[in-house]
Amino acid sequence: MMATKPKLHYPNGRGRMESVRWVLAAAGVEFDEEFLETKEQLQKLQDGNHLLFQQVPMVEIDGMKLVQTRSILHYIADKHHLFGKDLKERTLIDMYVEGTLDLLELIIMHPFLKPDDQQKEVVNMAQKAIIRYFPVFEKVLRGHGQRFLVGNQLSLADIILLQTILALEEKIPNILSAFPHLQEFTVKISNIPTIKKFLEPGSKRKPPPDDIYVRTVYNIFMP
Amino acid sequence: MMATKPKLHYPNGRGRMESVRWVLAAAGVEFDEEFLETKEQLQKLQDGNHLLFQQVPMVEIDGMKLVQTRSILHYIADKHHLFGKDLKERTLIDMYVEGTLDLLELIIMHPFLKPDDQQKEVVNMAQKAIIRYFPVFEKVLRGHGQRFLVGNQLSLADIILLQTILALEEKIPNILSAFPHLQEFTVKISNIPTIKKFLEPGSKRKPPPDDIYVRTVYNIFMP
Repeated sequence: MMATKPKLHYPNGRGRMESVRWVLAAAGVEFDEEFLETKEQLQKLQDGNHLLFQQVPMVEIDGMKLVQTRSILHYIADKHHLFGKDLKERTLIDMYVEGTLDLLELIIMHPFLKPDDQQKEVVNMAQKAIIRYFPVFEKVLRGHGQRFLVGNQLSLADIILLQTILALEEKIPNILSAFPHLQEFTVKISNIPTIKKFLEPGSKRKPPPDDIYVRTVYNIFMP
Repeated sequence: MMATKPKLHYPNGRGRMESVRWVLAAAGVEFDEEFLETKEQLQKLQDGNHLLFQQVPMVEIDGMKLVQTRSILHYIADKHHLFGKDLKERTLIDMYVEGTLDLLELIIMHPFLKPDDQQKEVVNMAQKAIIRYFPVFEKVLRGHGQRFLVGNQLSLADIILLQTILALEEKIPNILSAFPHLQEFTVKISNIPTIKKFLEPGSKRKPPPDDIYVRTVYNIFMP
């Protein structure tokens, strides 16, 4: 019997699902997507009790219907050995991921700001990245001289950090200019075969949010 | 050699540290607290590189300086067997905790809203609790007829849910009126000896946020 592919339920855009796509792709797991396009489709999932807390992202995987972005990421990371070799490594990975997700959250919310606030928020993001988050990871990489953030092997922390760096570079191309180890990290992690494939055209990676995505999200989720 | 007690760094109030206090107390772990009172104290922690992402909560424990609320909770839950017996239970606990933390976040932010918005937000919280979150946990408890949410033993999910229920009841005393199994859950979990002790006067549980707490937080964290 063939294992069923995971099925992702979310609009056709990045949002809170893009990290899940990244981690599945990095783990070499093929998946299907069911794109939400209307309020009625969301209602149908809610009415059928498919969404534990009435919300997407939702991922059907291994007979479960997982919700809450972090819980989905943790499950996939656990299953595919992307969460360290012991509790100490796991905790480092968890902290790095949580910090990076705080930064990524700003990027996810950006297209939904008023146009006047969007430019200001790019400045805020750049500052947060350059002052608070990137120095931590630069120092970690410089300190141990290894390719990966934790335990000398690929983990959830590397994947979410690369996703966040690439999304920030789309808005602020020189964001890594003061961080040589993060530049090297970006090149090396991007060249891991599963990730390289995800970064090529035709993969399930989603493009930067555009007006159509923003309108779709409003149509589905606004009361 | 005696093990060193964990030391918690945060203002003298609930905020994002109260869940950590709850989980340590439930696990029967004694801890010390260093209360932040001024911007200079925060600056000193930052300058000494004691805060990975420049932020509190921070917990010194087992030779590490843990940050990010969720990472701290996960570490303590892992160490004290509050995270299920296998990956499936762990994932359920993780989802329940993530949902409950979304609700708790509304409660944490409430005292920092403008006075005009505070009453409206109580209505919003009550609706979220009654429509989105409590029906899930009521159904879980009714479905398996057990005392705890997952795996017939105390987990992080029970502890964070009880914390959230009690905090909501302070604002909305009848919030559980339509949820008999959650009422029973509240009584039973509150009577677990370690938790019962934490709920008694003189414990390290913090009182509801008052004006002094709100002013202290503004003084420390506002630029």
